[in-house]
Amino acid sequence: MASITDAALAGEVEADFSAVDKARVVEALSRLLPAGALMFETEDLRPYECDGLSAYRQLPMVVALPTTEEQVVGILKLCHEMGVPVVARGAGTGLSGGALPHQFGVLLSMARFNRILSVDVPARVAHVQPGVRNLAISEAVAHHGLYYAPDPSSQIACTIGGNVAENSGGVHCLKYGLTVHNVLRVRGVTIEGDIVEFGSLAPDVPGYDLLAAMIGSEGMLAVATEVAVKLTPKPQLAQCVLAAFDDVVRAGDAVAAIIAAGIIPAGLEMMDQPATAAVEEFVHAGYPLDAKAILLCESDGTPEEVAEEIERMRAVLEQGGATEIRVSRDEAERLRFWAGRKAAFPAAGRISPDYYCMDGTIPRKRVGEMLSAIQEMEKKYGLRCINVFHAGDGNLHPLILFDANQPGELERAEAFGADILELSVALGGTVTGEHGVGVEKINQMCSQFTKPEIATFFRVKAAFDPAGLLNPGKAIPTLNRCAEYGRLRVSGGQLPHPELPRF
Amino acid sequence: MASITDAALAGEVEADFSAVDKARVVEALSRLLPAGALMFETEDLRPYECDGLSAYRQLPMVVALPTTEEQVVGILKLCHEMGVPVVARGAGTGLSGGALPHQFGVLLSMARFNRILSVDVPARVAHVQPGVRNLAISEAVAHHGLYYAPDPSSQIACTIGGNVAENSGGVHCLKYGLTVHNVLRVRGVTIEGDIVEFGSLAPDVPGYDLLAAMIGSEGMLAVATEVAVKLTPKPQLAQCVLAAFDDVVRAGDAVAAIIAAGIIPAGLEMMDQPATAAVEEFVHAGYPLDAKAILLCESDGTPEEVAEEIERMRAVLEQGGATEIRVSRDEAERLRFWAGRKAAFPAAGRISPDYYCMDGTIPRKRVGEMLSAIQEMEKKYGLRCINVFHAGDGNLHPLILFDANQPGELERAEAFGADILELSVALGGTVTGEHGVGVEKINQMCSQFTKPEIATFFRVKAAFDPAGLLNPGKAIPTLNRCAEYGRLRVSGGQLPHPELPRF
Repeated sequence: MASITDAALAGEVEADFSAVDKARVVEALSRLLPAGALMFETEDLRPYECDGLSAYRQLPMVVALPTTEEQVVGILKLCHEMGVPVVARGAGTGLSGGALPHQFGVLLSMARFNRILSVDVPARVAHVQPGVRNLAISEAVAHHGLYYAPDPSSQIACTIGGNVAENSGGVHCLKYGLTVHNVLRVRGVTIEGDIVEFGSLAPDVPGYDLLAAMIGSEGMLAVATEVAVKLTPKPQLAQCVLAAFDDVVRAGDAVAAIIAAGIIPAGLEMMDQPATAAVEEFVHAGYPLDAKAILLCESDGTPEEVAEEIERMRAVLEQGGATEIRVSRDEAERLRFWAGRKAAFPAAGRISPDYYCMDGTIPRKRVGEMLSAIQEMEKKYGLRCINVFHAGDGNLHPLILFDANQPGELERAEAFGADILELSVALGGTVTGEHGVGVEKINQMCSQFTKPEIATFFRVKAAFDPAGLLNPGKAIPTLNRCAEYGRLRVSGGQLPHPELPRF
Repeated sequence: MASITDAALAGEVEADFSAVDKARVVEALSRLLPAGALMFETEDLRPYECDGLSAYRQLPMVVALPTTEEQVVGILKLCHEMGVPVVARGAGTGLSGGALPHQFGVLLSMARFNRILSVDVPARVAHVQPGVRNLAISEAVAHHGLYYAPDPSSQIACTIGGNVAENSGGVHCLKYGLTVHNVLRVRGVTIEGDIVEFGSLAPDVPGYDLLAAMIGSEGMLAVATEVAVKLTPKPQLAQCVLAAFDDVVRAGDAVAAIIAAGIIPAGLEMMDQPATAAVEEFVHAGYPLDAKAILLCESDGTPEEVAEEIERMRAVLEQGGATEIRVSRDEAERLRFWAGRKAAFPAAGRISPDYYCMDGTIPRKRVGEMLSAIQEMEKKYGLRCINVFHAGDGNLHPLILFDANQPGELERAEAFGADILELSVALGGTVTGEHGVGVEKINQMCSQFTKPEIATFFRVKAAFDPAGLLNPGKAIPTLNRCAEYGRLRVSGGQLPHPELPRF
């Protein structure tokens, strides 16, 4: 049985699980699970070696595919007794390596938890298992005029359990919120096999409200087995404004001006010229290629609300110096406007062998500054970067283009990405937007938090997982790692004052 | 120096602080605080002996009135070193005894933290100290067309720090949310004197998102020193529908029907006949006294939105069997409709020497059932009860009328209240709505949570407050208390299925 030192539990150093005995674990798990629900041969493990952040790869020791909550309880209790790490996995579409397997651990695939348990139409709540795909919820309730609002670009494939783990967003989260704003309750199992519930269908939650802590915790507190999600009425109409700018800073300022005018668009996206060029030759969205930046600004609601809001948007955009404004005339044109934005990632893949998508968040007012800095970084690292932003949220998705087959390019891309994240923090922002921290941004977490804050995170984890077995080494850096990385925020940040950046 | 046993830290038994040495604590604190910021004579302590739940009274050992965050850090570090409990207090308007002093503890009044630090109009955020009054925020930003949405009935007096501690609500929280939905970031100090920040101005929060855990934690995790609140644009227009029903169950069903129709009223309140009778003779709101129940259903927004929503409300209410429907014709009439509802508590005080306000939450569909059960309880306990509900939220405020000077009446009122809370849980609801747990509902928390859940709460507390000194004995019951109370939920509740109650 592996044991974890106090220093590891306190978050000082990484835990060492090398003493885990694979044969004993396989033997014990095989008594809990039916045939076909346990895999431990290398060729069977291969499909699980990475998630959507394929730069990081690691074969798990074994893969378990439970079907029932009782099996999850059994697996977790067993791993707790034997001191075995457990990494839960949804569809494996995550972009920060949150589901990267542990060499000495169980990869717990929740893929078979794929049932929608019930839909309460009057209360607009669906109770689903965590392996249900994000889009499957919307499809199942479409005939009631409802949908599940968060729409990560992987929504065809990604699961609601994975969305809970990473607090996923999407292009509509400015108006409709991230996962944390659209999940009411999560039922989960702790590593000790206890069933705990987070959140409530009631407005207030008695006791400590730990739902938000569970959401985005990357499977480090408990393994979700049921999720109650909020359903949203489908808007009667959506219309999209495409605005072109001859200057990226001006485009960034227009974003801030729209929000300052009290408008909450259903989507507010920005693409720079290299990004529009990349997508245009791919999907022919009709973007103005001479613009330094374009904004897509969507309104939804009743036809009257949309008409009124579009006019307000147009006024702010004109005032903000837009060189061209087009309003989608019908649904086909609206979808064409969005097709370009949605094709940005594949377009990057088309013009470059590899790309690295970053996910920092900055105050809206600093978008222009960040874009200038990224241009400098392109020179510094000798790599190109195309930029698409969830601009209304200040959430950046720079796509750093590189070729992993060229020696040193991956490392340069990673250093480029780290620079962007650290600049995000320095500009008053954060290292994440909607993709989680995982393994990708764990070093940059050192810039974001102070030593007491990191120590508190480890103690919160210990409150749920006293042996430190759930997804060890993810999301929260050890103090030792931060010392080696050479950065740790020194004092608690001040709440921003007027002269400081704002969102 | 007092020390706390492991059993107390694990939440098994109450901690014993009787070894705290008042003279030494006073001497040490007097070196940290200027004259006038420390009180320890009985006559000076008297104003702090209770909060708004005056049935519970306890003199603190000392009262500290810091002015700066440095003083708060100093006081907390000192109390940590000396093993002294600390109870933070805002305006003392809380209704569940969350700020009830500790006999051997420091009562930490945050009253002098009363500055609005900055207002960021374009971002619609105000940065305030915790002792700022709720209404003072709205007053300070009114000329920008903004306000702070949560409006507890004590909003003239209560502070934002107290609102954070209790996750306070108000009549508009159905549409605009509780405190947890309107606070973006809290800066606080742990008992060890570390400054920690909860939440973020960005949409996603890196690391564990502990803001929601801090809000409603009744000063048991950290002491807030700065709060960033969201500001909301004032609606152009508000109009209110008053609907009368000849049956309380029908009125309850109409509430559920409004929500099911996809309408989110700005307020949706219900009063039963005894409540309307009590307020009518007091404020002459013009309520129909022959109705068994009335609903107040408010719409706000642009004039077009309000007109359209009022018509939809009217249709649902007519369909639901309303015997009379009145729509406020002007602002004076709208305020008159609300005057009755807002006078419910003082009206109860007018017709009875004492009243006890309960605060459970139940699924909307069960309102009729709860009212019938309360009628039975009135007979059982020989006490009258008038009922006002935040019906849209399912949040009940039964006002149990009693006379504390009559032997046994207070005890009967408390038992009556406990019955209501336990029935709330049995109906699929919770023991709190917007007043917190404090000392008032601590026994009923045993009915709400399982043993592993309560143990987890204590471990989360220990993550912030390893010595168990912040507001000990509040909100989360010890396992020993639950054993004595004779109720502890046996297994994790199921997420509701269609046949079960819903919100």
